Amino acid sequence: MIFLFTDFGFEGPYVGQIKAVLAAVAPGQTVIDLMHDAPAGRPGPSGYLLASLMPALPDQVVVVAVVDPGVGGPRAPLIARLDGRYLVGPDNGLMGPAAVQAARAEWWEITWQPAKLSASFHGRDLFAPVAGRLARGEAPESLGRQAAPVAGGDWPADVREVVYIDGFGNAMLGLRAGSVAASARILLNEKEIFMARTFSDVAPGTAFWYANSNGLVEIAVNGGSAARTLGLSVGDAVTIDG
Amino acid sequence: MIFLFTDFGFEGPYVGQIKAVLAAVAPGQTVIDLMHDAPAGRPGPSGYLLASLMPALPDQVVVVAVVDPGVGGPRAPLIARLDGRYLVGPDNGLMGPAAVQAARAEWWEITWQPAKLSASFHGRDLFAPVAGRLARGEAPESLGRQAAPVAGGDWPADVREVVYIDGFGNAMLGLRAGSVAASARILLNEKEIFMARTFSDVAPGTAFWYANSNGLVEIAVNGGSAARTLGLSVGDAVTIDG
Amino acid sequence: MIFLFTDFGFEGPYVGQIKAVLAAVAPGQTVIDLMHDAPAGRPGPSGYLLASLMPALPDQVVVVAVVDPGVGGPRAPLIARLDGRYLVGPDNGLMGPAAVQAARAEWWEITWQPAKLSASFHGRDLFAPVAGRLARGEAPESLGRQAAPVAGGDWPADVREVVYIDGFGNAMLGLRAGSVAASARILLNEKEIFMARTFSDVAPGTAFWYANSNGLVEIAVNGGSAARTLGLSVGDAVTIDG
Repeated sequence: MIFLFTDFGFEGPYVGQIKAVLAAVAPGQTVIDLMHDAPAGRPGPSGYLLASLMPALPDQVVVVAVVDPGVGGPRAPLIARLDGRYLVGPDNGLMGPAAVQAARAEWWEITWQPAKLSASFHGRDLFAPVAGRLARGEAPESLGRQAAPVAGGDWPADVREVVYIDGFGNAMLGLRAGSVAASARILLNEKEIFMARTFSDVAPGTAFWYANSNGLVEIAVNGGSAARTLGLSVGDAVTIDG
Repeated sequence: MIFLFTDFGFEGPYVGQIKAVLAAVAPGQTVIDLMHDAPAGRPGPSGYLLASLMPALPDQVVVVAVVDPGVGGPRAPLIARLDGRYLVGPDNGLMGPAAVQAARAEWWEITWQPAKLSASFHGRDLFAPVAGRLARGEAPESLGRQAAPVAGGDWPADVREVVYIDGFGNAMLGLRAGSVAASARILLNEKEIFMARTFSDVAPGTAFWYANSNGLVEIAVNGGSAARTLGLSVGDAVTIDG
Repeated sequence: MIFLFTDFGFEGPYVGQIKAVLAAVAPGQTVIDLMHDAPAGRPGPSGYLLASLMPALPDQVVVVAVVDPGVGGPRAPLIARLDGRYLVGPDNGLMGPAAVQAARAEWWEITWQPAKLSASFHGRDLFAPVAGRLARGEAPESLGRQAAPVAGGDWPADVREVVYIDGFGNAMLGLRAGSVAASARILLNEKEIFMARTFSDVAPGTAFWYANSNGLVEIAVNGGSAARTLGLSVGDAVTIDG
């Protein structure tokens, strides 16, 4: 099973072309769009989001993870194996938070080369064929050389920052809910935001925070957009009291 | 074959996580996004839209139908079997119009429980695994207890209301075209809107109504957006003369 | 393998209903969304975009190609076989540039008729079932009558026009990069735009052109939207010097 995690959006031929490669390299594999609206060009916040999604994936999947503003430049292409699940993508920190949370992380720098590599679309030309080969059972050793924990590999396990705003306007933090007390308040401008269990537990229009379905602290407004109501954007720092 | 009908949008990881569950529970099943832009948080209009889409689906499919503003609250989780096709989703009226149109409707309240149920994402944690089990052949009796026609189960078969505005700005009514005379006019403000067979039968910029490809009355403008031109929104009532 | 190339967007039930037909007619076939945001209602520019995507597709695929503003009117339904790959869609020029680029092009006018043909959704009712039949191995001769190169079939191989603007605001021309010198400049208003290899080779905010991953000339801005910065829209003519 292969998952796609990118900032490509569903516009254009990009996702479809990646799937064409996967279907040719690894026929019969189920391919699932995990998400294509990771924060555009921002591997940092995207990495916390990706980390939150990994534990719920089936064992032994391959994730094509591409948020790659440096495509065509010197950043290395990587394979990570985190507790048996593969990530394939650029070495720019995107895989870092997922690696921190894993019990066991191994790394390979990809040395496999396609017949033709475009300068702007390594997702299609490099990462997808490598992911397809891993999915059909090839060993990472045949596709790259083992690497030490990658450069800058001491990511913090949590950041008190907005890492994603979803289509409803809910703002996820890069902060696992298990590391915050239920009594904690989030301070935003002059406002205090308290925890609730879920949307239907607060009055319409009320802002609250809750442990979202992927285990992150998420700021929401019942029946409204937290991002718009509270003026939140990806990258905003947040103060937590308690 | 499993279809997804939701108001989640394609943003975020929500649809992908549902598909991950389905692939794990019912491997090999074809999963198709029927639509993910049902009117957000509005099971009423969404239900008429869903009803219009059911007859064209293959026999013996399972539809995960989730427009669920009350998620985490007291509304029950349901299985409906309508002429052999299953619907799985919340008991909030969403399945009502489809049930009215079916020759045979049976209901079960879901009693199956997942190991872990989030407060905000029953689509992934409850409805998807139940749908996967039905798709692989488990009997609804093993997943829930038979229920009488559900509370408030006397939905009107038609409503003279806008139930959906598509990406082109066409406005669908919750009204089957077969129940309206071809000579009928729709009255909107000071305007009369007449029937036409299809777009290319009227001049560019002209508003008309027609029997859409799912059998509903739809208000359209050739080469334009009916919603914008005529100021239509989901939920608007419409007067029909004739 | 079946690809979908349309201007339907992902909104509404349209793509899902096409997939339901394909799953019923050609079970087990992989179906891939190549793209659904071709320039809306504009077969001309869409055709150059489609042509650029064909060479990278696997051999012997079927592409449902629907940009069809004249649906329900007199335009004929077509099958094209271009170097072994099938295209199925309307005869309105959409397939023209792909045919010009093919070494071998054959045409059939579809005579197969569905039990029920809606006036507005031939993608679902006509093109999808024909595509499914081709994908499962039926001969085009059993679905239509051989046709001469279709009316107006002398498309230019290139146009110096914007044919698509992607989700990042990059503007693709209907012009193969191989037919332009690397020293050529694009002249836009008072501005000269030079070639670069890729995004990371120019300073943030700089406009450049490059050979995109599908071999077209594409105007881009590193870290920005070329369409917004330069005021570009689909259909705009562009002057190239050199």
